[in-house]
Amino acid sequence: MNIIVLGAGLVGAPMAVDLAGDASFNVTVADVDPKKLEDLEHHPVSVVQQDLSGTDNVRALAKKYDLVLNALPGFMGFKTLEAVIKAGKDVVDIAFFPEDPFLLDEPAKNKKVTAIIDCGVAPGMSNILTGHACRMLDKTESVLIYVGGLPEYREWPYEYKAVFSPLDVIEEYTRPARYVENGKLVTRPALSDPELLDFPPLGTLEAFNSDGLRSLANTIDSPNMKEKTLRYPGHIEKMAMLRDTGFFSREPIEIGGNKIRPLDFTAKVLFPKWQMKKGDVDITVMKVVVEGVKDGKKIRYVYDLIDRYDPATKTHSMARTTGYTATAAIHLLAEGLYQCHGICPPEFIGGQPECVNFMLEYLKDRGVVYDETVETLGDR
Amino acid sequence: MNIIVLGAGLVGAPMAVDLAGDASFNVTVADVDPKKLEDLEHHPVSVVQQDLSGTDNVRALAKKYDLVLNALPGFMGFKTLEAVIKAGKDVVDIAFFPEDPFLLDEPAKNKKVTAIIDCGVAPGMSNILTGHACRMLDKTESVLIYVGGLPEYREWPYEYKAVFSPLDVIEEYTRPARYVENGKLVTRPALSDPELLDFPPLGTLEAFNSDGLRSLANTIDSPNMKEKTLRYPGHIEKMAMLRDTGFFSREPIEIGGNKIRPLDFTAKVLFPKWQMKKGDVDITVMKVVVEGVKDGKKIRYVYDLIDRYDPATKTHSMARTTGYTATAAIHLLAEGLYQCHGICPPEFIGGQPECVNFMLEYLKDRGVVYDETVETLGDR
Repeated sequence: MNIIVLGAGLVGAPMAVDLAGDASFNVTVADVDPKKLEDLEHHPVSVVQQDLSGTDNVRALAKKYDLVLNALPGFMGFKTLEAVIKAGKDVVDIAFFPEDPFLLDEPAKNKKVTAIIDCGVAPGMSNILTGHACRMLDKTESVLIYVGGLPEYREWPYEYKAVFSPLDVIEEYTRPARYVENGKLVTRPALSDPELLDFPPLGTLEAFNSDGLRSLANTIDSPNMKEKTLRYPGHIEKMAMLRDTGFFSREPIEIGGNKIRPLDFTAKVLFPKWQMKKGDVDITVMKVVVEGVKDGKKIRYVYDLIDRYDPATKTHSMARTTGYTATAAIHLLAEGLYQCHGICPPEFIGGQPECVNFMLEYLKDRGVVYDETVETLGDR
Repeated sequence: MNIIVLGAGLVGAPMAVDLAGDASFNVTVADVDPKKLEDLEHHPVSVVQQDLSGTDNVRALAKKYDLVLNALPGFMGFKTLEAVIKAGKDVVDIAFFPEDPFLLDEPAKNKKVTAIIDCGVAPGMSNILTGHACRMLDKTESVLIYVGGLPEYREWPYEYKAVFSPLDVIEEYTRPARYVENGKLVTRPALSDPELLDFPPLGTLEAFNSDGLRSLANTIDSPNMKEKTLRYPGHIEKMAMLRDTGFFSREPIEIGGNKIRPLDFTAKVLFPKWQMKKGDVDITVMKVVVEGVKDGKKIRYVYDLIDRYDPATKTHSMARTTGYTATAAIHLLAEGLYQCHGICPPEFIGGQPECVNFMLEYLKDRGVVYDETVETLGDR
């Protein structure tokens, strides 16, 4: 089977290598940047150096392959997915684009295309596990997702390294968080509702509201649903201080006759401090808590993940947890295990227990282990 | 007696008003800014609108008066003082200029001029009280000065308003602190050695090393001498974070093709948050602790000041505590109580008990009250 990976970035490259481990796959990676492709030359993958910003290019390229994995940056994501759908190819997407993916649902159904979107760790596995727990319950009462990418080495003052685009990190600190409470959509400021939680053996972490529910807000029937981002304690106040002083503002101000956006300035000064360096150990922490009722009893499903950088393959945990979820989904498609047409957010996969088991086993084989705890909390 | 106040700023104006309360004084205020002079029109003072950046101007102006009070900004201070000395006029100086004032000692002595410099609250009263306590002791063992200007209303995140130039405040957070320890001059980073201290009824404050000894480092014979700045707890870490990230750097960086000094950017974004507004209540806190030996016993002198904005005269505490020290010194000169020639840092005044008493009484009449505690700590 011929597979094309669009984008040879931090996650794209390890995904291609992972897929190439399956002898039944011929894997090709496309990227505009020849340097990124060079890094792949010792791996059994083909490379295509090509500008993927034009949708005609993408469509023509996709047509040559059986399956597509879209790992391009978010701002190119939607148009790329649209082009792949037009090419009539099944696709797994981890571009995490900001547009509404369901705008492409009808085109995908018309083309009998399966388009699994948002298929990383969170969104991604968080959706699959939520979808799974909700299916096991008669009635879901609450969904709580905690997730964060953290450095192992805690360096003052931020104790943080950006495991993805730092501008997207700032977006988490500025965009109001939307969540569901008592059946209503609630909007609260970013960084609000700080909460301390213990994550042995890591220690105590701090959680804050972030705008990460995405498709879950519409697809899951639960009166309470919230995503919170995890950081080492103290990070929230520092970010709130920078934000509230105006350092993250996009409104230009005048400095010595030049118009400057504060965010551009802050990016230049701050982001080098947040840069993950080769060999830096990152950790991905996630906890998904779903509560509800089954056969008259109150039940709690808890999924816990603590994953680390892999020194053997020199793969960052964020690439492992995100990328191997997407490559697992590629296998789901390749093996015909998941066959629904249209736009499929990962919670749809969560509705099929055999698919969930496949995903969990695939990830476990790569050392990405989700611990499941099911508790009965009493009669309801 | 004819007195000229150079500079009608936040401290200059209240000083002129205070001096005008003495019927034996004719007070004139000079400033380049007509708006600042307008604010004085309902007070019994004369005004002169004049550019004081040229030293010839200053010299010619000073010649017309009996006494001069220099309240110009620090960067103009040294040249202005030099011009006043050349004019042969006694002067009290609160410009707090960065240059070494003793370069003007010989010129002042030649002209038989008394030039009392650094005559505010700290430097100023801190020096006078240190000089006084040292004179009372046979041997001084340590001098500790804690001082800070704070807002009464503590607003997150900084809990701070700049009671003088915010760029000078940043200077306190960046310039290494020099102090004397075990007889040696020690240099430590700004914001180092944080320490929590209780200042009833204000609450707990945080102190850090600042570079504020100035003349004391050379004029006082004590093996231990240190100045620390006071803030509400938490401020130090926030400032250290901004400093260590690079927000206070003076090295230009490139943003969108323009070279920008990070400090200029930060000033634009941060300083509006630190701006004291009309009617904002500020508080000046100072504690001077001098320990030593007298007649074989270990003695501790402690001076405590907590002063607040005066709603009756709408005068900020920083202007009161700084300005009334300087106007008290003008009275010392006018009444012939202090007669040494040359450059006189305030600790020299501290060596004359009758001058110290005069200063303390003068300040007390204006509600600026220093509490003195003398403790015997045991035999030595």
